[in-house]
Amino acid sequence: MEDLIFSINGKSVNPTRYEGKVRQFSIAVDEPENFGGKDSAPTPVEYILAGYAGCLNVVVNLIAKEMGITIKSLEINITGDINPEKLLGISDKERAGFKSLNIQLDINSDASSDMIQKLLTQVKERCPVNDNLANTTPVNYSI
Amino acid sequence: MEDLIFSINGKSVNPTRYEGKVRQFSIAVDEPENFGGKDSAPTPVEYILAGYAGCLNVVVNLIAKEMGITIKSLEINITGDINPEKLLGISDKERAGFKSLNIQLDINSDASSDMIQKLLTQVKERCPVNDNLANTTPVNYSI
Repeated sequence: MEDLIFSINGKSVNPTRYEGKVRQFSIAVDEPENFGGKDSAPTPVEYILAGYAGCLNVVVNLIAKEMGITIKSLEINITGDINPEKLLGISDKERAGFKSLNIQLDINSDASSDMIQKLLTQVKERCPVNDNLANTTPVNYSI
Repeated sequence: MEDLIFSINGKSVNPTRYEGKVRQFSIAVDEPENFGGKDSAPTPVEYILAGYAGCLNVVVNLIAKEMGITIKSLEINITGDINPEKLLGISDKERAGFKSLNIQLDINSDASSDMIQKLLTQVKERCPVNDNLANTTPVNYSI
């Protein structure tokens, strides 16, 4: 299969608000007031959590179907902690981004815990967002 | 400064649509019809691009201000390519996620290109989303 190309195109509306388009969808990003924004939209890192959770939904359901597992309901919660000192230029002691990400999957299913563990192993390998967060990705800048 | 905690809480509405809450905001994720969805919302990986672009907006403006650079306008476009074979279970030849991410920053400013390069070096180091995509992040699952 050929590669799929994804893109966002947008602009800075002010120092914290970005407005971009992906296909027919508009996405706005902002910061809360204590980070100089107007809290008009989710923060950048909250969109990372949304993309991750949405990806896990797709991949859990896809692989469950392959394995013959019926999922009655699925809740996905993700939490991550960031120390803001590097972003703010206060210190280099800690990394800039999420120090770790903690994913809680509440899978309501009759499948055995062994089957659910096998499902999870596949999910981690095949979820695109999990891949890009758990592993390194080349990033290229042009100005 | 203390760590900031970010979280999303939500559930699978169907095998492709996830609905989550981050603070007061609702975020929906879906897939296009050729991936089994209803194309009711951006895809997971498009939210990764949105978070990245929004983060770059905040950090470019923050560091420009520190450096005394006036930014007249700023466009941020990001493109990435994914081969879907691993996600779909067809082959393991390529990674599941973005193979690379290409960021185009159109910075309209009177600053010298040397200053803009210095700005960019700082941006890459201090942007939380750049950190989590370019580098590895521990991910912990609980079921």
